[in-house]
Amino acid sequence: MAKGKGEVKHIFLAQFKEGITDEEKEECIKRFQSIVPHFPSLKTFKWGEELSIANFDQGFTHVFDLTFESVEGVAQYISHPEHVAYAEFFLPKLEKFVAVDYTPK
Amino acid sequence: MAKGKGEVKHIFLAQFKEGITDEEKEECIKRFQSIVPHFPSLKTFKWGEELSIANFDQGFTHVFDLTFESVEGVAQYISHPEHVAYAEFFLPKLEKFVAVDYTPK
Repeated sequence: MAKGKGEVKHIFLAQFKEGITDEEKEECIKRFQSIVPHFPSLKTFKWGEELSIANFDQGFTHVFDLTFESVEGVAQYISHPEHVAYAEFFLPKLEKFVAVDYTPK
Repeated sequence: MAKGKGEVKHIFLAQFKEGITDEEKEECIKRFQSIVPHFPSLKTFKWGEELSIANFDQGFTHVFDLTFESVEGVAQYISHPEHVAYAEFFLPKLEKFVAVDYTPK
């Protein structure tokens, strides 16, 4: 694990499986938001639907944009039981996903 | 093209090809930064190296995080000759990339 100084952005791109309804997508987003208070290092949580301005989105439909205070905060988030339980609910609904972390310069 | 109100985040994930040197990567980042002043709608440009905190990065090594004032600003950026010229320099050095746009909620 690389070390980073300063805040860390955690960007999660998701493509829902075909057949997942709008209501199920909304529930995924609401449950994602509901776990935020468990993580003191998690400073901001934002999300948005992919706008298809260019054609380089590789099918991803949703973006989740989390800002943590530190690398350690992201690591704690990933292994925390609340996040693990949410991932077990959320990930089976996805066709694919990718998550990256970086310290913005 | 979907319409979005308010600022639009343009997130670009890149994986450089094997054999691309650190100096070439630095040149890519510098040239990317150098085209920013051509786009009045481009409010912030940040980038960072992927920190590999989790193992869901699918091989992506660099993140570029641009904030535009509007959907129209992103569309102008994508089709602008300065961006097109940069893309012709940059993209052949990449193993893969993905770009998504969203209005953060």
